[in-house]
Amino acid sequence: MHPRPILNFLGLLVLFLGLSMAVPLAVSIVFEDGGADALALSMAASSAAGLLLFLSTRSREEVQLGHRDGAAIVALGWALAGLVGTLPYLLSGAVPGFTNAYFESISGFTTTGASILSDIEALPEGILLWRSLTQWFGGMGIIVLSVAILPYLGIGGMQLYKAEVPSPVVDKLKPRISETAKTLWRIYILLTAVEILLLLAGGMSLFESACHAFCTMPTGGFSPMNAGVAHYESAYFDGVILVFMLMAGVNFSLHYRFMKGNLSAFPRDPEFLAFLGLFAAFTLAVTLDIHGSIHRSLSEAFRYASFQVGSILTTTGFATADFERWPACSRLILLLSMFIGGMAGSTGGGIKVMRIVLLAKHAHREVRRIIHPHAVISVKLGGKAVADEVLSSVWGFFLLFVGLFVVSTLVMAAIGLDLVTAVSSVAASIGNIGPGLGAVGPVRNYLGIPEAGKWVLIFCMLLGRLEVYTVIVLLVPEYWRR
Amino acid sequence: MHPRPILNFLGLLVLFLGLSMAVPLAVSIVFEDGGADALALSMAASSAAGLLLFLSTRSREEVQLGHRDGAAIVALGWALAGLVGTLPYLLSGAVPGFTNAYFESISGFTTTGASILSDIEALPEGILLWRSLTQWFGGMGIIVLSVAILPYLGIGGMQLYKAEVPSPVVDKLKPRISETAKTLWRIYILLTAVEILLLLAGGMSLFESACHAFCTMPTGGFSPMNAGVAHYESAYFDGVILVFMLMAGVNFSLHYRFMKGNLSAFPRDPEFLAFLGLFAAFTLAVTLDIHGSIHRSLSEAFRYASFQVGSILTTTGFATADFERWPACSRLILLLSMFIGGMAGSTGGGIKVMRIVLLAKHAHREVRRIIHPHAVISVKLGGKAVADEVLSSVWGFFLLFVGLFVVSTLVMAAIGLDLVTAVSSVAASIGNIGPGLGAVGPVRNYLGIPEAGKWVLIFCMLLGRLEVYTVIVLLVPEYWRR
Repeated sequence: MHPRPILNFLGLLVLFLGLSMAVPLAVSIVFEDGGADALALSMAASSAAGLLLFLSTRSREEVQLGHRDGAAIVALGWALAGLVGTLPYLLSGAVPGFTNAYFESISGFTTTGASILSDIEALPEGILLWRSLTQWFGGMGIIVLSVAILPYLGIGGMQLYKAEVPSPVVDKLKPRISETAKTLWRIYILLTAVEILLLLAGGMSLFESACHAFCTMPTGGFSPMNAGVAHYESAYFDGVILVFMLMAGVNFSLHYRFMKGNLSAFPRDPEFLAFLGLFAAFTLAVTLDIHGSIHRSLSEAFRYASFQVGSILTTTGFATADFERWPACSRLILLLSMFIGGMAGSTGGGIKVMRIVLLAKHAHREVRRIIHPHAVISVKLGGKAVADEVLSSVWGFFLLFVGLFVVSTLVMAAIGLDLVTAVSSVAASIGNIGPGLGAVGPVRNYLGIPEAGKWVLIFCMLLGRLEVYTVIVLLVPEYWRR
Repeated sequence: MHPRPILNFLGLLVLFLGLSMAVPLAVSIVFEDGGADALALSMAASSAAGLLLFLSTRSREEVQLGHRDGAAIVALGWALAGLVGTLPYLLSGAVPGFTNAYFESISGFTTTGASILSDIEALPEGILLWRSLTQWFGGMGIIVLSVAILPYLGIGGMQLYKAEVPSPVVDKLKPRISETAKTLWRIYILLTAVEILLLLAGGMSLFESACHAFCTMPTGGFSPMNAGVAHYESAYFDGVILVFMLMAGVNFSLHYRFMKGNLSAFPRDPEFLAFLGLFAAFTLAVTLDIHGSIHRSLSEAFRYASFQVGSILTTTGFATADFERWPACSRLILLLSMFIGGMAGSTGGGIKVMRIVLLAKHAHREVRRIIHPHAVISVKLGGKAVADEVLSSVWGFFLLFVGLFVVSTLVMAAIGLDLVTAVSSVAASIGNIGPGLGAVGPVRNYLGIPEAGKWVLIFCMLLGRLEVYTVIVLLVPEYWRR
């Protein structure tokens, strides 16, 4: 463990977040929304604190950061970003109390999208833009995490992705991470810009277009409107946002390879095919389920079903319908989608399609092994045998994810939530979706959850976002020895 | 595949079940309950059919049965026993319609205990004894299955138990299975007899004592009373039945070793300690949860909590309280217990404690592997390293179990059940518990489930009881080749 370079990095992060508040500050000044003072103060305080921490921990000697440092940087970085994010909320009085502010801020940086706000439209535009930016920055963090860090920490089977993009060497983590990250960030920024343009073209204001795009690409799901995307009642906006949610749920290295001219990058990727297959199957089932009971016309049923399945499967969490009122089968499919999540290497949360595919293939192999007890049968992905170590890592991830989901749900129920709300609030938090079912359904919010419950959910959001292991290792005494 | 000896064995099974109907027939004659005609006819028909099948498929040459034959015998045996079991129900008119009769019969032979009967006490005593006997015979079948067959088929990690008791060799499955089975059956019969005596000593009638004991030792849960064990409102009966449920949920080879004089058999078994630990922890949590909200006195809360946790964790399904009205946390703990189930090698269903222990240890190892990426860390059980092949088999089992649970729940919801009923009816069926939550709660029954839903649940009961793999391999085309 090297505390000095870790603190140095954290200082840089806080400085960056502080400086970035210049953008919402400018918006607040232009809109004269009354949020400028709070944003200016937040910007000054965090920039100063970040700069101080950065300068006081600088060191001339180049330290080689190991994988222990990696886990600490990631977990502390997210927790600290959440803290910085509360400043504009608290100083402007937009969010009442520290717990609520930290909940909203962590929900932003983990790109969850669960909110404690009841009247969103009453808040200053600058504050709302900051809220959207927390998600957008969270998404940038996830890209680095899932494509450049996790594969090298050997976490949850992500080592499969080691060779996908220009990549760092374990021992010299720092210099080459930035190379990989920059490449993928360019794609992320490009897609965000294209979405803003398409929303503008449909007649949405620049402010609202930016806010929605900043929350689509990280699969975040915050909206500046009280009714969310449902506010517009527009098939065009639904379609644009759905397409970008799906793109955000795809492994960014596929976008990279596609843009490099590899046109078969998508159809050749088994995880992508499974992701599309799940999206298509779930959309079909929900369309048939809500057709008749909720929507008279089949095309309308398809429109709302596809948007909602895409939104939940990619773990974005935008809503165009009150799916809390949909039949049980549709609600169960959405609940199941919360666990599956997007592709590995995307900004989506959940268990990830790659892991679900490997788990299913593993189960299939075990069935075949009973039929052929003496044969050696390996699990293959895209024609290549998957190492047992990778499978083992995936299984461990799956069990930790499910185990922590079960324990957290029991705690939420013990705190006093009803069964459906306890189950779905934890699923929506650990999967980084946002809206759940019951008291935290799409047209309601998390304000009424008891204080202790909010902290459980904050922990779940971090757990899910940091792929469980990164948080869990920090809680093991062994990690801190030596 | 050897169809002739398989059919020969099935003939013997049907003959045995037919002849065994002599016992309920005698009861019907003594009680003059009006069920004698139906039982006599059922007995004659099944004995004759069984004898005919047995004689027509006899063969002089000794065929060595392979593991494919094993799976076929097990799956077909249970399905066929269910068919024979419907005869007394249908001929006496006790159960309306074939689907209901097959549901009740399969629920018996799989020792699930889910019932479609509304007024149980109105039925002839002979029919009720037959209903209890289906569970008792089911339990005998499970003992053979889990201690003598599954370990040799390499199913779901049961190969861990290969060396536990005098055991057959894979190639000569038949002769030595009966040896193992007889040893354990003696223990099963002995414990059943002791339970009958203890219930008699408390003042329960011989008929009711026998019925309850026949349904406790197989962790079945059928009761001849409409209100189940709650009928007696007796702490003594609750206590006796709880102790025997727990004994039924323990690996029978531990009972065997204990009776052979190995007094440290129980405290040295890691699975047993985990089983007791789960029982204690869940009982404590439920006691605290229902104390105050449901029961004023702590001792009363403990009595109902311990009975219900013991009943659901061992997958028996007896109820002394309407736990549907308990707070969400207690209901979630009971729902979780349905998945965990009893110990491997017991008559209990569910995933089994041994597998849960291995899964948890595996997850712990993966966390440690991230901290020590270059160390070789093995999963140990009771001080011995567990082979990766066994772990792999356990994982495969877990995924198939959870996957089939999810798919079946979606089907039940699509059929029209509400969310809680869909989830809990499938959990209670695939885990072989019986009562669930919602419309299939402990004071209600399965009569109102739509016809198609009943067949889904019948399939789930068989899947759970036959450890999933045994049924699934039969559905794979590869299994039937050659």
